[in-house]
Amino acid sequence: MNPDFLNRAIQAAVAAGDSVRGWTSPNPPVGAAIIDEHGDIVGIGATQPPTATDNAHAEIMALRAAGDRARGATAVVTLEPCNHIGRTGPCSHALVEAGISRVYFATSDPNVAASGGADYLNAHGVPATNLQLDVAALWPWLTSLRHNRPAVTAKMAHTLDGFSAAQDGSSQWITGTAARTHAHVDRAHRDAIIVGTGTVLADNPRLTARSADGALLDKQPLRVVVGKRQVPDEYHLAAPDVWREADLKVALERLFAAGYRDVLLEGGPTLIAGALAAGLVDRVHSYLSPSLLGRGLPAVNFPDSTKLNNIADIQRFSLVDVQCVGEDVLIVADVLARE
Amino acid sequence: MNPDFLNRAIQAAVAAGDSVRGWTSPNPPVGAAIIDEHGDIVGIGATQPPTATDNAHAEIMALRAAGDRARGATAVVTLEPCNHIGRTGPCSHALVEAGISRVYFATSDPNVAASGGADYLNAHGVPATNLQLDVAALWPWLTSLRHNRPAVTAKMAHTLDGFSAAQDGSSQWITGTAARTHAHVDRAHRDAIIVGTGTVLADNPRLTARSADGALLDKQPLRVVVGKRQVPDEYHLAAPDVWREADLKVALERLFAAGYRDVLLEGGPTLIAGALAAGLVDRVHSYLSPSLLGRGLPAVNFPDSTKLNNIADIQRFSLVDVQCVGEDVLIVADVLARE
Repeated sequence: MNPDFLNRAIQAAVAAGDSVRGWTSPNPPVGAAIIDEHGDIVGIGATQPPTATDNAHAEIMALRAAGDRARGATAVVTLEPCNHIGRTGPCSHALVEAGISRVYFATSDPNVAASGGADYLNAHGVPATNLQLDVAALWPWLTSLRHNRPAVTAKMAHTLDGFSAAQDGSSQWITGTAARTHAHVDRAHRDAIIVGTGTVLADNPRLTARSADGALLDKQPLRVVVGKRQVPDEYHLAAPDVWREADLKVALERLFAAGYRDVLLEGGPTLIAGALAAGLVDRVHSYLSPSLLGRGLPAVNFPDSTKLNNIADIQRFSLVDVQCVGEDVLIVADVLARE
Repeated sequence: MNPDFLNRAIQAAVAAGDSVRGWTSPNPPVGAAIIDEHGDIVGIGATQPPTATDNAHAEIMALRAAGDRARGATAVVTLEPCNHIGRTGPCSHALVEAGISRVYFATSDPNVAASGGADYLNAHGVPATNLQLDVAALWPWLTSLRHNRPAVTAKMAHTLDGFSAAQDGSSQWITGTAARTHAHVDRAHRDAIIVGTGTVLADNPRLTARSADGALLDKQPLRVVVGKRQVPDEYHLAAPDVWREADLKVALERLFAAGYRDVLLEGGPTLIAGALAAGLVDRVHSYLSPSLLGRGLPAVNFPDSTKLNNIADIQRFSLVDVQCVGEDVLIVADVLARE
């Protein structure tokens, strides 16, 4: 296929997958595009929420949009088409039946029950190629399958010298409006947000996803409070729709069992340190304010008992993305095995 | 003039100025390009070092390269052509004599003695336009003129939680090879490097500018040690070509008087904090390692007496540039007035 056409179809499929991040769990947010021999995109689809009437996969949505124009066309999907009868029929069969002549997929399906789609397609005269691309929207789902718990992104906001608040606890605001809005939009794309009871009692957060003017965004993640301390009724997170768990590891296991795949761990500093030490963090989102406080409350607070004396004890991350967000910097980095 | 031609000439002039950063003080590192009506660049020049035989300015070098082809051509210079007879004759006169028909310059000359070049050109039938662009290579020189001391860039290398070394003092290495090489190349572009006696005694640095394989780079900055403590003979910075000063402010005054315009303040943490508190820092270079140490030696160490309790005491910077350097991030930010 013409590489420009293929590239265009990949971009359309990736964007479609991105658009449903946070809506599809326990299914992955997949995107699909159908492109004909002239380079015209004749159908785009994305995974439907599990609550939708027929909760169709991305391929089915794209095939429906393409109708007869799918015959002879190429399908580009961000994940290997499924080959099993779950909540829906196998996408691999639907692609063959619709007369698709060629399939490209960005990444293979590690889920044994669903995999085999590429083999089925190849066996039925539809060449299927694994492009082996990293698809950002699929990172949480793929990570969660690897660990049998939701992917955990620890979010921090701090100064260059690593403080999330001044000595007296004041922290409004370390980061600027753009960074705070960015963090709210990120919440809307997550399945759940976790904070510790320490943060609840100190800051009384709402943990809702809001726009810059304070309006609630369309999608709200599940709110989870972890810790043993009591949250009095007058706190926002004493609301009945908030999950409570004493222990983070147990919380993650239960969230996974209930279909949650992508959680944001928003602190506080002690909970994040404990999660890192326990290997329960996959990625960090560090909203870095170009400023210095000199002293204050650290963004990550390891207990004194932790062995952290020598450079060999360093916890390293691997950069995924660095971007300016207003007057601040967002650093996205993945946890690496300790040296 | 055709905007593409102008843009090309600006890029050539800016690159020429960049190429002499660190060689020209007390003169600014200026670049010039002569472009004819066909868009051909017929001459490029950069300020010569003050130690060069005729220490010509950028315009003179570019006019010499262009020869007869300067007649009727356009000159683009990163700084307003000088109008005074200093070590060289006035560039404004030379441009008129060479038959240049049009002059663009990126930024005006704040130096009263040298300014007036644009007026002279306009009065002699050569329209001269101030493009009002920011020229990175001129930032130190312009900053030094504003403060009557060298521009001071404080360099730090630290983890996300703000530590430059582990608790036991070990720090090899917080940042990766690419960041360390980057910092060495940066040294070569500075007029001088300053460290405090605390750093000298703790780390025994050489403060030379070296390539990744340890070879000395062509240009070496002046090395300056500030502080009251004695540096024993066996230390690298006990060398006779190292400047010694008890006080940072005095050191900067003397460096300025001696023609130094651009210095890098490499620490330690207490010296940087003192310089920030005294308003002696213009910019920070923060080499940020995506890692956590949990505890250790801070990158900036404010004395306990400093009032730093509330978020209102925050020292803010304004982002200039953010870039990935190997596995690390370099944040360049300018000091802002304290809130």
